[in-house]
Amino acid sequence: MKYYAGIDLGGTFIKCGIVDEKGNLIAKDKIPTGKERGYTEIARDMAHLAKRLAENAHVELTAVGIGSPGTIDSANGVIVYSNNIAWKNVPLGESIQKILRLPVSVTNDANAAALGESWRGAGKDYKNIVLITLGTGVGGGIVLNGRLYEGNRSAGAELGHTVIKIKGEKCTCGRRGCFEAYSSATALIRQTQRAMARESESALWRLCGGKSENVDGKTAFDGMRSGDKTAIKVVNDYIRYLAEGIANFANIFRPEAVLLGGGICAEGETLLVPLEKQVDKMLFGGTHYAPVKILRASLGNDAGLYGAALLAIQTVNSQ
Amino acid sequence: MKYYAGIDLGGTFIKCGIVDEKGNLIAKDKIPTGKERGYTEIARDMAHLAKRLAENAHVELTAVGIGSPGTIDSANGVIVYSNNIAWKNVPLGESIQKILRLPVSVTNDANAAALGESWRGAGKDYKNIVLITLGTGVGGGIVLNGRLYEGNRSAGAELGHTVIKIKGEKCTCGRRGCFEAYSSATALIRQTQRAMARESESALWRLCGGKSENVDGKTAFDGMRSGDKTAIKVVNDYIRYLAEGIANFANIFRPEAVLLGGGICAEGETLLVPLEKQVDKMLFGGTHYAPVKILRASLGNDAGLYGAALLAIQTVNSQ
Repeated sequence: MKYYAGIDLGGTFIKCGIVDEKGNLIAKDKIPTGKERGYTEIARDMAHLAKRLAENAHVELTAVGIGSPGTIDSANGVIVYSNNIAWKNVPLGESIQKILRLPVSVTNDANAAALGESWRGAGKDYKNIVLITLGTGVGGGIVLNGRLYEGNRSAGAELGHTVIKIKGEKCTCGRRGCFEAYSSATALIRQTQRAMARESESALWRLCGGKSENVDGKTAFDGMRSGDKTAIKVVNDYIRYLAEGIANFANIFRPEAVLLGGGICAEGETLLVPLEKQVDKMLFGGTHYAPVKILRASLGNDAGLYGAALLAIQTVNSQ
Repeated sequence: MKYYAGIDLGGTFIKCGIVDEKGNLIAKDKIPTGKERGYTEIARDMAHLAKRLAENAHVELTAVGIGSPGTIDSANGVIVYSNNIAWKNVPLGESIQKILRLPVSVTNDANAAALGESWRGAGKDYKNIVLITLGTGVGGGIVLNGRLYEGNRSAGAELGHTVIKIKGEKCTCGRRGCFEAYSSATALIRQTQRAMARESESALWRLCGGKSENVDGKTAFDGMRSGDKTAIKVVNDYIRYLAEGIANFANIFRPEAVLLGGGICAEGETLLVPLEKQVDKMLFGGTHYAPVKILRASLGNDAGLYGAALLAIQTVNSQ
């Protein structure tokens, strides 16, 4: 049996898992990133974490895979730019390869999560999936025939930055009307707060203790459950935005399944059932010939570990 | 040298080209489709056209590729549904294979054109291209690493049916706000006619002889060249719609080039220069790391012949 390290580099924690070639996670741990430090120290910590976990589990590593935030030059293992950890042109793969003397593969964190979900998570029965993570922003990962699709120079798969409403809401990327500006958790919070500002009698005020800064991604759903009309409209509008974006990706990729990740998905069927119903109506040519399932991602924070490990496996096997 | 037949099945004509393995078109011809006939007669005509062309050129065919309108089950060579020729579940590949006793591959006509452009046309220097054809509707084809991307059950790549304006213009597919409803030639004509209805003094009226039913895809561009303000606004708005959709596809696929086909592209730089400028501003992460060129497709009506032939080559080579 061969063993691989999958590392998920985040702004707060470095997480590492040891995964065997069949996809069993046999050990995992996390340490603080300390992102204010230089990249050499962070790379050293990443390498040592993988080494320690493998030693403790009495296995030898064959290769290492990494999911990192930002724009990644996968072919060269370079973090071209990451807003999250404030890196520019960091040769992360090479740094870790020099310490561990093992092949190292790097991809974007959303891509790693998509690959992980397609291998061991909600996407495991499908060859083609799209993962959309609804968080502070919207991350996207595309797996086609079991392989990541990253675009030229691995700069693609920016699903959050596709406009669904021309001249609409301002997005962090500079455009207006991006899917992210309507369907991230941040967007839902903004939509909830705006509705509250218009409706002083809404039960939403009670749910956040009278302070709109207490609104989170759950507030509107809680309000809907309490029967508040304002909240119901916020949730319905939000689901419509989500449906339009997801239907776009479905018409482009026609995957067997679209997986949703991020805290909002804790709503489960409350979110997924009306969402799938709407997307079904928007699928080009209908649902009969090539249906598209909407599923909740199932690996949570471990998705990136599995995906990074699979990336390492695929890289080694293709050499 | 091996030789292949590439057939482009249209609502009006069946076109066929004989292409050698290096991509040289050595013979071509077309015959009327006669789409009111049953599919067996049409399939027979298609087979005989390929056979006759090959015989006249004194070459032997190795395989046949076909681009057909509609939703195609490529794996089985079946036309699942075509509005254009009113077919449903037609086993076109098998029918032609039985007559010619050669391998037959079938794909959607827009896909065939994309493959042709990537092989012998404006996309020949790139591995990843997206072709968008602006006609009565909007066709899309995606070539990744030199191969067609068709989606699960070859039902993907419906680029025209992605919403860029929620609750916008009604689309033929049933949704509202699709890219096709803003950027097809049909859409430009509608936009021109609406602007004329608002502006009775516009020079556009003169350009179409006072009859709005004479408006075509060139009218607004001609009006712009004559300095008419109404026409300038129509063209600017149209280019903005195009740019938003193209930037979406660029952010998803990050191809080296987006190719545009269809009659409107005869405008050349008048269209392409401002379009590329706008798309550049909308690219996620800017243009520096992974630029995306906007080019005019160069093979015209022959794109589908080349692409269908390449599909046949790829199918034979992968077996």
